[in-house]
Order: sequence, then C-alpha cells, then structure tokens
Amino acid sequence: MGAGLAGALMAVMLGRRGYRVTLCERRPDPRAAGFVGGRSINLALSCRGITALKCVGLADEVLRDAIRMPGRMMHSPRGELTFQAYSGDANDAINSVSRSLLNLTLLDAADACESVTLNFDCRCVDADLEAPAAIIADAHTGETHRIEGDAVIGADGVFSAVRGRMQRTDRFDYEQRYLEHGYKELVIPPASACGVDPAAHDGFAMPPQALHIWPRGGSMMIALPNADRSFTCTLFWPFEGAGSFADVRGEAQVAAFFREHFADAVPLMPTLLEDFAHNPVGSLVTVRCEPWHRGRVVLVGDAAHAVVPFYGQGINCGFEDCRVLDALLEEHSGDFEPAFAEFSRARKDDADAIADLALDNFVTMRDRVNDPAFLARKRVEHVLQGIDPERFMPLYNLVSFSNMPYAEARARGERVVALAERLVETIGVEATRTLDDSALRARIMHEVATGEMR
Amino acid sequence: MGAGLAGALMAVMLGRRGYRVTLCERRPDPRAAGFVGGRSINLALSCRGITALKCVGLADEVLRDAIRMPGRMMHSPRGELTFQAYSGDANDAINSVSRSLLNLTLLDAADACESVTLNFDCRCVDADLEAPAAIIADAHTGETHRIEGDAVIGADGVFSAVRGRMQRTDRFDYEQRYLEHGYKELVIPPASACGVDPAAHDGFAMPPQALHIWPRGGSMMIALPNADRSFTCTLFWPFEGAGSFADVRGEAQVAAFFREHFADAVPLMPTLLEDFAHNPVGSLVTVRCEPWHRGRVVLVGDAAHAVVPFYGQGINCGFEDCRVLDALLEEHSGDFEPAFAEFSRARKDDADAIADLALDNFVTMRDRVNDPAFLARKRVEHVLQGIDPERFMPLYNLVSFSNMPYAEARARGERVVALAERLVETIGVEATRTLDDSALRARIMHEVATGEMR
Repeated sequence: MGAGLAGALMAVMLGRRGYRVTLCERRPDPRAAGFVGGRSINLALSCRGITALKCVGLADEVLRDAIRMPGRMMHSPRGELTFQAYSGDANDAINSVSRSLLNLTLLDAADACESVTLNFDCRCVDADLEAPAAIIADAHTGETHRIEGDAVIGADGVFSAVRGRMQRTDRFDYEQRYLEHGYKELVIPPASACGVDPAAHDGFAMPPQALHIWPRGGSMMIALPNADRSFTCTLFWPFEGAGSFADVRGEAQVAAFFREHFADAVPLMPTLLEDFAHNPVGSLVTVRCEPWHRGRVVLVGDAAHAVVPFYGQGINCGFEDCRVLDALLEEHSGDFEPAFAEFSRARKDDADAIADLALDNFVTMRDRVNDPAFLARKRVEHVLQGIDPERFMPLYNLVSFSNMPYAEARARGERVVALAERLVETIGVEATRTLDDSALRARIMHEVATGEMR
Repeated sequence: MGAGLAGALMAVMLGRRGYRVTLCERRPDPRAAGFVGGRSINLALSCRGITALKCVGLADEVLRDAIRMPGRMMHSPRGELTFQAYSGDANDAINSVSRSLLNLTLLDAADACESVTLNFDCRCVDADLEAPAAIIADAHTGETHRIEGDAVIGADGVFSAVRGRMQRTDRFDYEQRYLEHGYKELVIPPASACGVDPAAHDGFAMPPQALHIWPRGGSMMIALPNADRSFTCTLFWPFEGAGSFADVRGEAQVAAFFREHFADAVPLMPTLLEDFAHNPVGSLVTVRCEPWHRGRVVLVGDAAHAVVPFYGQGINCGFEDCRVLDALLEEHSGDFEPAFAEFSRARKDDADAIADLALDNFVTMRDRVNDPAFLARKRVEHVLQGIDPERFMPLYNLVSFSNMPYAEARARGERVVALAERLVETIGVEATRTLDDSALRARIMHEVATGEMR
C-alpha cells in the first residue's frame, strides 16, 4: 500500500525476487499527470538510502542527477558565510535529489518488473489484519473493494490507514507528537533570475555544494540546491509567539522581518512575498508505534516511524527498512510472519534512535551551529576521525555515512561526542579553534594516548 | 456521547442547568437488561469523585452503599497481615463502590432531568468537528445517522470515536501506551462460602475496611470489598516471562503458583481455578492527547486521559473533569468554544500528573510497600501531617483526600516526600520504625524546627 518512495522501492525489491506485487497509490500516475504531492521538493540522500538503492542497481542512476553537499554553509544575520565540512573524509557527502524524480525512477523500475502491477487513484482506507487484505477506495467513484494477499505491506505514509487499523488492536503502542514549529517552502531561483553573476557559482545564486542554513536561535531557514540551479528554501518557524507564522504576517511585516533576519537571502528571493503568501504552512510530526506488524501485515517507512526532517534521514531510514525487510524475507525463505516479527523487533530501537536524533538536531541546527564551543567540538571530532576513523567516527558520520544500525550509531557517536567535549575542555575552546591543524592533532593524540581520554 | 460514569454525570450536570442533552450509549439500558460491561466490578471513590457528586446532590446516596477503606492491608507470602493507614487523619478513607450501581444511580438521575434524553444501543462511531455533530450507529441495524447540536461532548471512553476523529486533524498530539502487565479478576466469596467464621469479619472472609494487597515484586494481587460481603480480586501479572499469564497456565500450574505466592488467599478462593480459566486477561493502557477540544467538540473522562488503575483515580479524575467543565460553562455563560478551550488548557497538566502518578504507584504497590525504608518514610509523612496538616500534607493525601489540582498536588507532595526521605536518613530507618509515636514526633519537630529541613 502506497507508491511513495519506500513503497515503490519495496515493490522493486519484491518484484525482482519474483513476488507478485499489487502496488496501490492514492495519487494519479505521476508519469501521466505530472507529480502531485504536498511533500518537500528535494531531500538529502545519504549512505543508507544509497546502499538500499544499490541492492536494486539504481544508485548510479539516482546519484547522476544529485548534487553533492559535503558540508553546511552557515549564514550569519550579517550575511557572513562559514562552511563546515560534514566529515573529516572528503569523500563523505549528502546528496540533494529531487523527490519527484526519485519517485519516478522507482516507479519505472517497479513497472519494469513483470510481477508488479501498479494501481493509481486507489487509496488504501483500511486493512483486514486477519485475512490479510487491504481495503481500497477508488479515487473517482469512492467505491471500495478488498485485495487479499499473502501479506500486506503498509507503506502508506505518516497518516497510514494500515497503521490506523493496527492502532485499534490490543496492546498496540502508538504516539503522534507535533512540533511547535511549522514549515513553509520558498524559492531562490537560478543566478540569472536574481541578478547574480551566473559564472560565480556555476549558474546558482549561492555555492551549490552545501546545505545552507540560516540559524536564528529558536527558528531557522535552510536551502538545498536543485538540478535546475534553483534552491528550495524551507523556513522553520514557531506557529505561535514572537517571530512565528501567527506573528509575522502581511507583506510589509514579512519583508521587514526577512530584511532583519535573512538579509543576505532577500536579494536572492525575488518572489519571496508571493511565495510566502501562497505557500501553505506545514506541520512536523514524529510518529512512533510498536509493534510494526500484526500477523502477515507490516509497516515500513513513514507509516512505521515518521521523523522530523532535521537529520535528513527520513527517506534514508525508509529505504533501509526496505533493505532490511527484503533481507529478512530471504532469510526466512519468504515466510512472512516470522520475517515481519523479526523486522519489527530489529528495527524499532533504530527508528526510535533516529527519531530522537532528528529532534535533537533541530536544536543543534538552529541554536548551536554558531556556538564557539560547538564548533570547537566539531573540529576535535574531525581530528579524532583522522587519527582513527574506525574508533572515533563522529555521530553525524555514523548516521549519515555508514550503515551501522541507528541505535548503535547513536550510542557510539555519543561516546565520541563526550570524548570530544572532554578534549575541548582540556585544551580550551579558544586554543581548539586557533591551533593549526598539525598542532591540534598532535595535542589531541597526546591527550588520547596518555590522559584519561584513552 | 457515552453514558458510562463520566458521561452520565456530565448529562446530570448539564440537565440540571437546563441544557437539552441527548445522551447516546452503545450498550443496552442496564436498567432493563442488567449491567453489561467488561470493566472492573468495583472502584475506589475518593475526595474528587465525591466532591463532583455533591454538586448534583448524589454523594450521600452513593456513599450509603460504599465500603470505607481507610488503609491498605498487606499480605506477605507467608500470610502475615500488616495494616497501613492511608492517612494520619482517621477521617480520611477511600470508598469501594460498585461500578454498575454507581452507573445506575447516575442514569436514574439523568433520566429524572426533563431536558435529558437517554438513547441506548446506539454507538458513536464518528464525529463532525465542524458542524458539530455526532455520527451514531444503531446497535441492531448498523444504520448510521447524524445528531447535530450546539456542542458534542465525547465521554465515549478509552477507545473514543470522537477522539479518533480529532486524531486525524492537524497538530493533535496523541499517545496510547500499554503496560507489559495485564489483569484478571478473581473472587473471594463471603465468609460462609469459604469456611471462615462469619462473625470474624462481619460476614467477610477478610477484614473489609481495607484495600488488600499481595505485593510480590514485579506483580501483585489486590482485593476490594463488595457490599455483598465478597471481595473482587485483581491479579496484575506480566503478559510474558516468568510468573506471567503466558507462563502460568493449566490447573496444576495455577494451583501450585497460587499456593506458593498467595498461600493465605487460596483457602478463600474456592472457585479460583474456574475463575482463572474463564476470566479474560485485560490490558492496561495510558492514553494522553492534546488538545482535548476542537471548536465545540470536547473530550472528558477516559476519552481524554485514560490512566492505569493503580492510584484509584480514574473515575475521580473523570468526575472532576465534569465538575470543572460544568463550572467553566457557567463562567462562560454557556459559550462552548472558550469554555472547552479553557477546560483543555486547565486540565491537561493535571491529567498528565495523575497518569504519571498512577504508573509510579504500580511500582510502589507491587515492589515498595514491604520495603523498610518506604514504611519508615510513610510513618514520617503521617507524623508530619499531624504536626502541620496544611504544610505537610503527604502526596497520597493530596491526591486522594483533597481537590487540589493534580499537578500542584504532585509538586507539593513530592516536596513532602523529599523532606520525609531526608528525615528518615537523618533519624535512621530502624529508629524511625521503632521509636514510639511521641518520641518520633518530638524528634521530627526538632529536626523541622532547627535543622536544614525548615
């Protein structure tokens, strides 16, 4: 159920194993109708997502159209830019890809599997957990019918109807929790459309090799580059209170607020006021549930674990679900029930870990990326990574540039954070920031080798 | 929606104010059909519930049939009994009342209101939050119809359909979380039916003036007295693992397990094995949500905040909801929307507080009530209460014997707990337990007056 990103990839994986798959999607076929969706325009694909795509041979095709972002570019209120590499390893990067293009690639791949049938304009509205069966409503007539199968996989997103049915079964834990912040998408067009020399940044209005962040303490704006040389900006503001969507309204106020807080972006956003007025404010929710299965019905992707977008891991986690479930089905020779049960057991802690990390990272991104102590710690983490990449891989790297299960990544990464914090304390924030690379490295190696840091 | 305890009381309150109320209940009329319900047979009514019943003049009638329980009676594995008063004030007690009788009393009172219409066999299956309206299904035909009104009050319980509709609106936080323990109800019949001298305990098989507890570390059994001189026992066991419902099965195992762990109860339970085999295992859930209202639709009772039963506050909290909402409606001259909004704002923290306290109290009841340090602390709390009832009212008393908002009661009560723990530490556990009353009181007064305990 659901031919979004996780559902489509799952169908490709199952189809290639010869399973007969009926894929149902409430939206029209985007290949005929043009993509219709309320979700963000681009997303950050990293190691886990790429690993899953490699399983079905689609990684190269997807990455061909992606834009590498090896670090974040911080924009201060006065417009100063600071680049922070995500990793001490220059090969590491996250990749901005178009959500709609990625979905089309996966749908084409699913369609190319002989055993996969794609059905659009049919919405999963309920499930029969015993049969098992999905109850499908035709988007045009509203009529419902049942599709029985050996198994039902609910990839029907954050408002999953399959999960809705599970929620009404005994001893099903469920939580949906909204942030007090909402989001609104805005646009920075290509350089030529906003008076920037196209030669400066390869046709982009800003350097494209980065995820841009305007951290403003309690709120922020980010921007990811698109293949057409525009950026999609996302404003994360509180719904209520000072500097909120409720507070800053009307062209004059919006213009003044942006001039004050996002001064360097304003000249790059010629359609700011129209976009602000017309684009909706979305809400941000974390969904957790347990178990993810009932008999031969299972949830994957956002249906099982919607996370906030601040670690860029939503789709990476969803794709990893597909890879893990596919492997478990093979391990259990296609016996759905034990495979689903083990999938739920194995993945739950990992999904909780990335949900927590994503919530934490919102605070980091908006409040801490300009904090000298934070920057000093980041520098120490990179040096540690250079000294022993295996032993001292930083948290961000374990999450974004490895396939280590999230819960383990968090536990290991937090030990590195604690070590880095102790090192900054010992060396001093100022010294950590100002020592040259080799001096800092020597100092850290000394501390790690001889001190209580071992 | 819902003519359970909270729904029926709310209808009485509104009816007496002259509101035209349509009360819909999925069950048949218990006055015609005999009570049909899957819920516990008796419950512990305390101050908050009584206060709400007083508002509609029903407290005396309800308490006439109640059994006072001024303390808990602990049963050790070897059958030793220890009575612990709930309060230093002999007037304080919780009251065992029959759920079905209480419901009948409230339904009769609702029926006696000219402006209240009672509809049974009609289940609320959905709500229209805009109209507002309730969607009702006839229990016999399954046909649905709408009831429009100026307001909809969802008192439709832990699996509330009204709340189900709210859950699908934007920015509605929701959580349902099950305990790893389930419950099963058992029976201790009157003395004459289990070979106990009826003269010993006024016809009961055990002293009736107490809530009986068999704490067994990780699990427990409790028993509350009924007006017919029986006790209803409730076994709280884990679903899985050693000593769980999954583990202890079949007559021989059940009999052996009870002989080992509940030896003194076994002779009082002549139908133990039949009851154990036939009675279902129920699950225990905490439900939290926010907000409790959308426009002119509001939730009360378990629909808004189902709590586990370990503080005996579920119905007391539900009745207090009714009292608070009724007062807010008067304050707002019947203007539903602001009254509902303020109700949700005002009560949410209190409901969270009692939900947390109820979860904590399960651990206290099953694991700590035999712990010398805990018993010493309880004794100190009672002495403190005697010294200054206003200043040192213990947590249990603030929750059970006052109408102080739960969140405030928790905060104040926890300060008294902390003070009592410091006093036990200073005086010593053994001395606290063995000093006579006047010596302990003198010692505590000295510490409170002169030490850092002030």
